[in-house]
Amino acid sequence: MRPRARLCLTDLHGSLSDPVLDTMNFLNEVTARFPEAISFAPGRPHEGSFDPGSVGRYLRTYTSYLARERGFTPAQVTSAVFQYGRTKGQIHELLARTLGNDEGIWVPPEAIVVTVGAQEAMLLVLRALFAGPADVLLASSPCYVGITGAARLLDIEVVPVAEGDTGPDPDAIADAAQAARAAGRRPRVFYVVPDFANPSGASMTVHARQRLLDVAAAQDLLVVEDNPYGFFTRDVSPRPTLKSLDRDCRVIYLGSFAKTCFPGARLGYVVADQDVAVPDGSRRLLADELAKVKSMVTVNTASLSQAVVAGMLIENGYQLRSANEAAAAFYRANMQAVLTGLGRYFPAGRHAEHGVSWNSPDGGFFVVVTVPFAADDAALEVSAREYGVLWTPMRSFYAGREGDRQLRLSCSYVSPGEVAEGMRRLAAFIMGQRAS
Amino acid sequence: MRPRARLCLTDLHGSLSDPVLDTMNFLNEVTARFPEAISFAPGRPHEGSFDPGSVGRYLRTYTSYLARERGFTPAQVTSAVFQYGRTKGQIHELLARTLGNDEGIWVPPEAIVVTVGAQEAMLLVLRALFAGPADVLLASSPCYVGITGAARLLDIEVVPVAEGDTGPDPDAIADAAQAARAAGRRPRVFYVVPDFANPSGASMTVHARQRLLDVAAAQDLLVVEDNPYGFFTRDVSPRPTLKSLDRDCRVIYLGSFAKTCFPGARLGYVVADQDVAVPDGSRRLLADELAKVKSMVTVNTASLSQAVVAGMLIENGYQLRSANEAAAAFYRANMQAVLTGLGRYFPAGRHAEHGVSWNSPDGGFFVVVTVPFAADDAALEVSAREYGVLWTPMRSFYAGREGDRQLRLSCSYVSPGEVAEGMRRLAAFIMGQRAS
Repeated sequence: MRPRARLCLTDLHGSLSDPVLDTMNFLNEVTARFPEAISFAPGRPHEGSFDPGSVGRYLRTYTSYLARERGFTPAQVTSAVFQYGRTKGQIHELLARTLGNDEGIWVPPEAIVVTVGAQEAMLLVLRALFAGPADVLLASSPCYVGITGAARLLDIEVVPVAEGDTGPDPDAIADAAQAARAAGRRPRVFYVVPDFANPSGASMTVHARQRLLDVAAAQDLLVVEDNPYGFFTRDVSPRPTLKSLDRDCRVIYLGSFAKTCFPGARLGYVVADQDVAVPDGSRRLLADELAKVKSMVTVNTASLSQAVVAGMLIENGYQLRSANEAAAAFYRANMQAVLTGLGRYFPAGRHAEHGVSWNSPDGGFFVVVTVPFAADDAALEVSAREYGVLWTPMRSFYAGREGDRQLRLSCSYVSPGEVAEGMRRLAAFIMGQRAS
Repeated sequence: MRPRARLCLTDLHGSLSDPVLDTMNFLNEVTARFPEAISFAPGRPHEGSFDPGSVGRYLRTYTSYLARERGFTPAQVTSAVFQYGRTKGQIHELLARTLGNDEGIWVPPEAIVVTVGAQEAMLLVLRALFAGPADVLLASSPCYVGITGAARLLDIEVVPVAEGDTGPDPDAIADAAQAARAAGRRPRVFYVVPDFANPSGASMTVHARQRLLDVAAAQDLLVVEDNPYGFFTRDVSPRPTLKSLDRDCRVIYLGSFAKTCFPGARLGYVVADQDVAVPDGSRRLLADELAKVKSMVTVNTASLSQAVVAGMLIENGYQLRSANEAAAAFYRANMQAVLTGLGRYFPAGRHAEHGVSWNSPDGGFFVVVTVPFAADDAALEVSAREYGVLWTPMRSFYAGREGDRQLRLSCSYVSPGEVAEGMRRLAAFIMGQRAS
């Protein structure tokens, strides 16, 4: 008998032994493990009035647009839905128009690469910009695991820059860049979610955004702005994106339709309007370099997904902010109910007694609660099984131990009728853990 | 005025300066650049009777299956199409059943990861299995650019193993593995398309397949078997896949629905039923490790694409080979017409005079023609503009210069009525180049 192939985890790529690579699976699957629990865990959007039958209508809207406004023949329409497409994507013109309408970001459609969600965009940006081990990524901390995980796959070092209630401190970013440079490294990119960050809920003031751009210019950094939640304000006016304030072409903007349209389409995009100088003296768009990487990651983004999202954009007049107002109201009400629930069970002014505190984000999906015990996977198991309530440990969003006693509550996926009961269960769990 | 961000190609990742990264874009887009030319360039499938309106029907077939056979509630059906899904994919059970029916490959559904085309599967496999610079990839040469490109993104060295008319020689694979080991490297994986390879059209005999598996066992190699074209036999019976012959769990199998169902869905999968030993003494499936990588590349594969392809599988009784018989007949007739055309313009026995030769593949999409001049991008421009016929230079499929005087003709996308005229134009181009 010949030997079977023997593989050992320690012989595989180092990323597979790093807990950060388990996190996305966890976030994606924990709700399925405890279907009866009330779930404040996943950052999934509310399903609202989505109907699988509407997919056909969106497709028809798009194919009619191609035939009527673009003059496609029936065979060309079929190819547009059925075949491989352009590596950079097919609906870049519609995306550019929508981005202009919604965010005041006006870029040439050629500067857009359509991606398999914002996740693929992160991988493309990191692969293109990070040339070797000297290059380091600065990232707001706590940090979305998608960027730290993608960096881990590519053996890119991440330097965390601590976030406050109004996001990262631009001076701290400058300090981190200088320290990296002093250590012989090249600080290349700063990654940030300026609006209602995942997981912290923090948002940058307009002043901090401008100062961040000043620091980026002074330190020769590019800024990757990830904006999945910007529509979902609570009691603030929308703030300008970094990209809309960007005069120096330093911001690479990541967009997602997962929260605003349709997670099951896995559609996102990256705006990369930076010039790249080529040794022969010519210039290219960074977007074209990202597309070259993309051709070896996913070849192109599903034509089907692009067609369906295009149909949604067309039906909404190339603007999604107003189309998302009902969803924004839903998240707003849920977050208020979560904050009200926390206030009921853990009254203000008695923090010394109960040891529980939380932030009050300006919008988005997430509230962070600090508790007087380790909020780890074991505690989550207890919470799910014994108390019937799910949340996300904050630990995996930090490089260090800062999040060990924090949990993230997502207000996006729970139904409004369940929030009060969910908060009762969460309070019982927290009080039970304190007592144990 | 502050300085704009300045990027130089030479400061970006080295892959972006490698011509292999331009190849996929080229293949994907050259047809669009010359819409009037007859195109033997892209390996796109024939569009047959595809109708965008059928997407809605496939979706209904799948959602009915979920409701009736799986007992999903309406809300669960909506989630299955609309939401994020399981990282490894949602339709693994249907894929396992279809793979068993079509190829005699029976694997547990848990060993399957649904991917964004076979391309993403290549990236996941390479990332998981290649731990550091000592690990090298052996690949049949000429080689599909998707695997060499993905390796380039991850800084993985590729060692070519020359292919003959019956594919790679197992002894040459053993020699290459030993030479790599003697040089202090770890030969990790051998990549091959055993049936009707892209670009060579070569196919392995059953005997060579068995010897390849012997070599893999002796040299402790894993084999990545990529099988996009296996259904499209010409005048041979289907041969068993490597995976169906694999007794030692050495074969990782890549499947694609791009040629057999629907390229615009960007759906593929990888079968990775290998055990991975974990330091704590437990075991995992390699598929689960690949899923961890996938979570940081694309999070999960579009639920929408999975739903539509699932509807196709259900409507076809979980077998695609018979459903593809009409397409196979189409490709067969086209390839015969291409070979007939070559024979007409470049008669046998007069090779010394015209200097043109070609192979006669057992199936698939591709014929390789050797010509007495450099078949490079400049020649292709001439062919497209002056003669109205497109093909693919073979050069980018080789690490060296072996393909400099070869061109690939794809028989898949051209319409049958155009083949004869296309061959007339190709012959005129070849004779024109010889004379110039």
